[in-house]
Amino acid sequence: MDLANRLLNQDKRAAARLITMIENNEPEAIAIISELYQHTGKARVIGITGPPGAGKSTLTDKLAKGLRRQGKTVAIIAIDPTSPFTGGSILGDRVRMTDLYTDPGIFIRSMGTRGHLGGLSRATMGAAKVLDIYGFDYIFIETVGVGQSEVDIVKAADTVLMVMVPGLGDDIQAIKAGIMEIGDVFVINKADREGADRTKVEIEMMLDFNHSDWRPPVTKAVAMENKGIDELIENIEAHMAYMVSSGGYLERRIKNCQAEIIELTQQSLLERLLGKEENRAEIRGLAEKAAMRQMDPYTISNQLLEKMV
Amino acid sequence: MDLANRLLNQDKRAAARLITMIENNEPEAIAIISELYQHTGKARVIGITGPPGAGKSTLTDKLAKGLRRQGKTVAIIAIDPTSPFTGGSILGDRVRMTDLYTDPGIFIRSMGTRGHLGGLSRATMGAAKVLDIYGFDYIFIETVGVGQSEVDIVKAADTVLMVMVPGLGDDIQAIKAGIMEIGDVFVINKADREGADRTKVEIEMMLDFNHSDWRPPVTKAVAMENKGIDELIENIEAHMAYMVSSGGYLERRIKNCQAEIIELTQQSLLERLLGKEENRAEIRGLAEKAAMRQMDPYTISNQLLEKMV
Repeated sequence: MDLANRLLNQDKRAAARLITMIENNEPEAIAIISELYQHTGKARVIGITGPPGAGKSTLTDKLAKGLRRQGKTVAIIAIDPTSPFTGGSILGDRVRMTDLYTDPGIFIRSMGTRGHLGGLSRATMGAAKVLDIYGFDYIFIETVGVGQSEVDIVKAADTVLMVMVPGLGDDIQAIKAGIMEIGDVFVINKADREGADRTKVEIEMMLDFNHSDWRPPVTKAVAMENKGIDELIENIEAHMAYMVSSGGYLERRIKNCQAEIIELTQQSLLERLLGKEENRAEIRGLAEKAAMRQMDPYTISNQLLEKMV
Repeated sequence: MDLANRLLNQDKRAAARLITMIENNEPEAIAIISELYQHTGKARVIGITGPPGAGKSTLTDKLAKGLRRQGKTVAIIAIDPTSPFTGGSILGDRVRMTDLYTDPGIFIRSMGTRGHLGGLSRATMGAAKVLDIYGFDYIFIETVGVGQSEVDIVKAADTVLMVMVPGLGDDIQAIKAGIMEIGDVFVINKADREGADRTKVEIEMMLDFNHSDWRPPVTKAVAMENKGIDELIENIEAHMAYMVSSGGYLERRIKNCQAEIIELTQQSLLERLLGKEENRAEIRGLAEKAAMRQMDPYTISNQLLEKMV
């Protein structure tokens, strides 16, 4: 049976193989997703983010188990920062619960932050499509919310869960800034630590500036002890119900598709620019001229675009 | 006198005006930089990054004062995360030393992370060119090193200074991962805090994996008390000397120009895609089809590219 049919028949190894092919930007994999695209759109995509140390992996695992108890299937895509020196993953599966791996209703995939031809965002969106076609009820995309690229990835979800932790001082404001606004549902994990109530107040105060119809709920949890998980699942469901009833659901999906189309088009341009050895040599030559101040980058870029377009 | 001549005559208000125009992606400003491009390349560009709370602004200020004592002029571009709710800057100049503002040999500019037509990276590179044409000896680009976009900005420097802080636990590994490898010079600020020596050992251990000819020096500093600043300036100078003697200096500038050319070309494509109302409407229509699973994003992106190219 070919990969496409194996995927439709819920063969996990076919899903894993396709995701690897997507990471390598293999045209065959993209053709398969294109062909099966009408099978996507059924899964609920949840983006899970927050600062390092908020316990996102543990919380994600507990949410997955909670949904499993309700009979739902869950795929987890964990964006995993890659060590710059060893090349290996840093967070890895160190805190991941091993019993999840043996559950047939769960699929877990780590994706490193390097070595994706065509970008991590494209690879992640492709992987989500594969798992959607497979038929998972929920797809979790878990990432460390520390930068614009990471935020862009998690934004491509139906619901964004923001995982905070007590004791984020002023210092962490910079991280908060970029990610607070994208949260649909907030949770303060490790809420048995000192300062959980103050953190809740701080988040609520920030949310007071947000005047959309949906007020993101903020709850406390201790994922390690399975506390607050059911309430969190209820909040996630409530957001979904709101999105559907308000019409915001389709609108968000359109916006996400638009962002993906633009991203794919930009990436394709990059491939055209850099895909051929002769083009790379030309750009290298132009960059040398720019570095030696013989031509400026604006003029060079315009010339390249004119030549291509 | 026109803006170009005012800039060449070291008029700070002209520099500030041009940077604002660059932020707004005004063609007139880009034309001026193109015209004056041969005046760039003299300034030494230092990228300063590190996790939130490492005290980068204070350290940057002390470095600037140290260089001023040597008779050098310094421009500081501070990338400042913007509050998602209020729109205002978050870090602002709250910790910036006020006496720097009255020093004629210093120029300070904050750039928010939002609202740059054509991207923050493009705006920052443009601002650096303006300040280079103006004639500053050093240009500091200071950013919170928390994500790929931020890392890309700071990488476009001749020397990258990585500011660490004691007591970064395992939790901060994710931040470290993305930024450690780009550091040419390391400093552990707030070194009077507990754990500075352990942090130094940890950094040195990571650097052991790095087998390039330049071993990044790691020193300790307490910027608030002006401790370790002179040694840090010496290390920065030593990196520059190494870059020049090894030939790495030109090579890095070529690589940075190459990255900028590619970035500019991608941004121009984006403008072509989204600059016209009719194009935006078309892409919106295609995104609706994708959201309703009538067409897949890969096919749409290919069509768009074929149409344009």
